[in-house]
Amino acid sequence: MPKEIELDKLRYGTELLKRGFAKMQKGGVIMDVTNAEQAGIAEDAGAVAVMALEKVPADIRSQGGVARMADPKKIQEIMDAVTIPVMAKCRIGHFVEAQALEALGVDMIDESEVLTPADPFYHIDKRKFKVPFVCGCRNLGEAVRRIWEGAAMIRTKGEAGTGNVVEAVRHMRIVMGSIEHLSRLGDDELYILAEEYTQSYAKSAQQILGREIDGNTPVFGEYLYDDIKEEIFGILKEIRQIKRLPVVNFAAGGIATPADAALMMQLGSDGVFVGSGIFKSSDPEKRARAIVEAVAHFDEPEVIAEVSKDIGEAMPGLEIKSLEVKLQERGW
Amino acid sequence: MPKEIELDKLRYGTELLKRGFAKMQKGGVIMDVTNAEQAGIAEDAGAVAVMALEKVPADIRSQGGVARMADPKKIQEIMDAVTIPVMAKCRIGHFVEAQALEALGVDMIDESEVLTPADPFYHIDKRKFKVPFVCGCRNLGEAVRRIWEGAAMIRTKGEAGTGNVVEAVRHMRIVMGSIEHLSRLGDDELYILAEEYTQSYAKSAQQILGREIDGNTPVFGEYLYDDIKEEIFGILKEIRQIKRLPVVNFAAGGIATPADAALMMQLGSDGVFVGSGIFKSSDPEKRARAIVEAVAHFDEPEVIAEVSKDIGEAMPGLEIKSLEVKLQERGW
Repeated sequence: MPKEIELDKLRYGTELLKRGFAKMQKGGVIMDVTNAEQAGIAEDAGAVAVMALEKVPADIRSQGGVARMADPKKIQEIMDAVTIPVMAKCRIGHFVEAQALEALGVDMIDESEVLTPADPFYHIDKRKFKVPFVCGCRNLGEAVRRIWEGAAMIRTKGEAGTGNVVEAVRHMRIVMGSIEHLSRLGDDELYILAEEYTQSYAKSAQQILGREIDGNTPVFGEYLYDDIKEEIFGILKEIRQIKRLPVVNFAAGGIATPADAALMMQLGSDGVFVGSGIFKSSDPEKRARAIVEAVAHFDEPEVIAEVSKDIGEAMPGLEIKSLEVKLQERGW
Repeated sequence: MPKEIELDKLRYGTELLKRGFAKMQKGGVIMDVTNAEQAGIAEDAGAVAVMALEKVPADIRSQGGVARMADPKKIQEIMDAVTIPVMAKCRIGHFVEAQALEALGVDMIDESEVLTPADPFYHIDKRKFKVPFVCGCRNLGEAVRRIWEGAAMIRTKGEAGTGNVVEAVRHMRIVMGSIEHLSRLGDDELYILAEEYTQSYAKSAQQILGREIDGNTPVFGEYLYDDIKEEIFGILKEIRQIKRLPVVNFAAGGIATPADAALMMQLGSDGVFVGSGIFKSSDPEKRARAIVEAVAHFDEPEVIAEVSKDIGEAMPGLEIKSLEVKLQERGW
């Protein structure tokens, strides 16, 4: 093997390296930004990374229509403005948007339900990429499927753009509860769970082929149903053993205050994404710093109380019941 | 036979020639245009053909009512303005609109679900025409029926006028998955599939005649049920052998960005139609060129990233769940 290829292999792409990059964000705050100025504010406030977007989720939600990958020029401007890692979003299943983002040199791709899904059957085969991916989940099944597909980081879906933390709490409790529950399951029961989680791929393949599938049918790219089931069984055994996901698990969707961020950390998050919560508030600079502090000192109530003082108005936010479109229902 | 007629026969109308014309569009982008100026922009941007329309699908959708063949004067103006082939749409089953378009001298007719269907039972008998036709499909059955009827080109229906690529992806995955599946079928199973695909004609004939039909009943023009079934069996055998449709298969419906166009190509399209996506965007000229580049270099992520930069706002687009009318459900 020529040396450059070996080096290239060492630099990028292995699961270990992709997960390692994601792990470096642990204990940190990742902030949505829409231009170089906001990216600078986020970096100065101590964000571990920024997510480059054309619009924050609250604006995507209020404007409706189809939301797509941001203009690569915008992303490039943000990459040029900061020294911390820059992430960007592609649509669920839109592997060409992901290829373009990888070519652009972003540090991580978020295959995100905040954008309009592009594929009704499949998420991206993230193993085919060198760049690491983060994906959303509402429950352990979604988390495990995304990890099997190659995601290096998981985040709760919450309900993006609402400034309402209740759905992030829901999804974190469900994921953590399910992980806890695994410790009470024997291999037989775990295998049944693996079968259940793999059904999602079988269903897509059935819709595409118009017929029942068997264990030897490719149900996700070239991967056969039985092989996926075995690998998912393996992931579940690992989760049962280490009592956590094998990748970092961040909270996202609706986090608007330092207390929200600390709440998610106390519930077991490895870090938080703040989307609309910062730049839709009245004083983004103060709020960004306060949320970073709150995540660093999530179990010190005095600090939470202190950093929550006088940071202006939080984003107004939305009642979940009033929503016409729930972004969290995108993906499966 | 007089010489002119022989020549005429050689020039037009044979299946080989009609399919050959369609094949010449391969790897290209066909753009909807509503006037001579837009047609010029499309030609300059490198479109392989234009589709002459009075309104793009997004406007047809938002204005509602009955959509029909465009004013031939409009089509003529567009034909006079460009040197590339000009296509035009007629309503499903409206063979007189098709006759008029053929008389006008258009290069290809799109029997399109974007217009309001004119016949509840039958698509046009496209074998009776000299001009080649393109027809939409959602699955292999629709594709095979249209090919049997004489279509020289197939396109996925997608969901026109939405700027949302998800339905084009759905239909392309289903068609490609079904073709792949054929390779695992023996002649017996293929024959059952041919029978299933032919049922659609039987159903129409039954509704018209008000009684059950048998193998010797004409169920589409003068064609008998059994004969159609045999010919469809033949088409299926050919597809199984060549592992693709015997005509070119383009993607259409909801393609709005260079990445969308490249995605459809990577999923196996032979080319793309872009309807509202270009002239409903903020900078049609730039976007048209970018989409042509993206289709030519569909598997080069660096090119996709580069041509996606700074091309203005894409068309706003529509969420599929919010639609009152799904155009893709027209035709069968």
